[in-house]
Amino acid sequence: MNRPEANGGSLTVIGLGPGDPALLTGEAMRALEEAEVLYGYGPYLSRVPMREGQRRVESDNRQELERARAAWTDAAAGARVAVVSGGDPGVFGMAAAVCEALETGPESWRGIRLSITPGVTAMLALAARLGAPLGHDFCAISLSDNLKPWEVIEARLRAVASAGFVIALYNPISRHRPWQLGRALSVLGECLAPSTPVALGQAIGRHNESMEITQLAQVRPESANMSTCVIIGTAESRLVARGDLRPLLYTPRSMPSPSTERT
Amino acid sequence: MNRPEANGGSLTVIGLGPGDPALLTGEAMRALEEAEVLYGYGPYLSRVPMREGQRRVESDNRQELERARAAWTDAAAGARVAVVSGGDPGVFGMAAAVCEALETGPESWRGIRLSITPGVTAMLALAARLGAPLGHDFCAISLSDNLKPWEVIEARLRAVASAGFVIALYNPISRHRPWQLGRALSVLGECLAPSTPVALGQAIGRHNESMEITQLAQVRPESANMSTCVIIGTAESRLVARGDLRPLLYTPRSMPSPSTERT
Repeated sequence: MNRPEANGGSLTVIGLGPGDPALLTGEAMRALEEAEVLYGYGPYLSRVPMREGQRRVESDNRQELERARAAWTDAAAGARVAVVSGGDPGVFGMAAAVCEALETGPESWRGIRLSITPGVTAMLALAARLGAPLGHDFCAISLSDNLKPWEVIEARLRAVASAGFVIALYNPISRHRPWQLGRALSVLGECLAPSTPVALGQAIGRHNESMEITQLAQVRPESANMSTCVIIGTAESRLVARGDLRPLLYTPRSMPSPSTERT
Repeated sequence: MNRPEANGGSLTVIGLGPGDPALLTGEAMRALEEAEVLYGYGPYLSRVPMREGQRRVESDNRQELERARAAWTDAAAGARVAVVSGGDPGVFGMAAAVCEALETGPESWRGIRLSITPGVTAMLALAARLGAPLGHDFCAISLSDNLKPWEVIEARLRAVASAGFVIALYNPISRHRPWQLGRALSVLGECLAPSTPVALGQAIGRHNESMEITQLAQVRPESANMSTCVIIGTAESRLVARGDLRPLLYTPRSMPSPSTERT
């Protein structure tokens, strides 16, 4: 077998991007071809074309650490293993779980070759469709309180909204977390004007792509699902009407200096 | 000529990624091939293979708005125009300038077809090389005070450092902005422990790629340049030693709940 290292296997974490194959990088495509076994959440694995002789190990969305451990175990046994992740694996994806599994796993795993292939994360794909909503300083927050306390999330929302960041929300809602997005929006409503532009998007570049531009006070949390990315603008964000075309949403690169504001 | 629309040209903003051609998306490669004219900052244009019959219009790094206006003017005259941008065009790149030029330009430009091709932005490419430093909530801040007041930047740094975000700094230093990174690091030093992990990286995937993992109190601002991306971890960020291999830097997905912390 054509192993990359004579003495063992390897592990690659692959960013699949938002779903459109045209948004995969060349590096990610090559890594998918070279893998002997693919680990991942079912819907992500199903985006990858089947290849003869390549094994697939599917697991549930909330079993990241178990999946990472199984992948390391397989690599330690000599396989060229890939773990697939939606978007970019470093943004609320599998890269952190793979690192955590390594830290808490057998010492012998630490000599295994690891590579991580970045990808286009959801907020970048959605932003590109909208115009340039992230055009200024911005942040990304996961609304999942499975792994961190809700109080921390609220404090972070207040901090960044008050400081003028564009905010991208990941994992806004799920069957097990039905109220978090609504609560987050009302926290943001304490810091931001009701007319602040908000965009919701999902499955960018896929057949079921959908997008909506609205205002903070008008967002219906029930229109989001687990794979929705929500971008909340700032006081500077602007809509540019374009006749029959979708309006552009952008946040200008510049902001007035304090002396300008005073005049 | 094979124009996408019978009545005129088009404008595409293309994310070139961090520099390694393997990190380009398929969509970006196709858009580069289809363009009749490319607008961009010289060093970005020079990454794109020359193609016979394709014009190139090079401009200085700080002339984004003028470049965007020239590109729209060319598209309005019927050309298939592409504006190239390093990394992702929506992250401190050309997309916002293109939107701003449209908003402030002739009404007739608004009917021109615009598309924006996302890319792998510097912090994602650097993070993938390091492990998963952005594994938790994170933000991106440009340290350039050409377009926003320095006081705003300091207030944002304090807000996100105090709230526990991983911080990615873009445009940390330049000939015209020599002191900003040093000042930013000392502001962060008021909120974060001196041992907080910091990574600096540039030209990821290119022949002159370089990376350094250090601690907040040890960063030498003079080791950064205009194209350096700086990632500052949180109190939870961890290094995983790997013998002869580079240590991994990651920020765990989970953080302790308040009740756990009290015990």
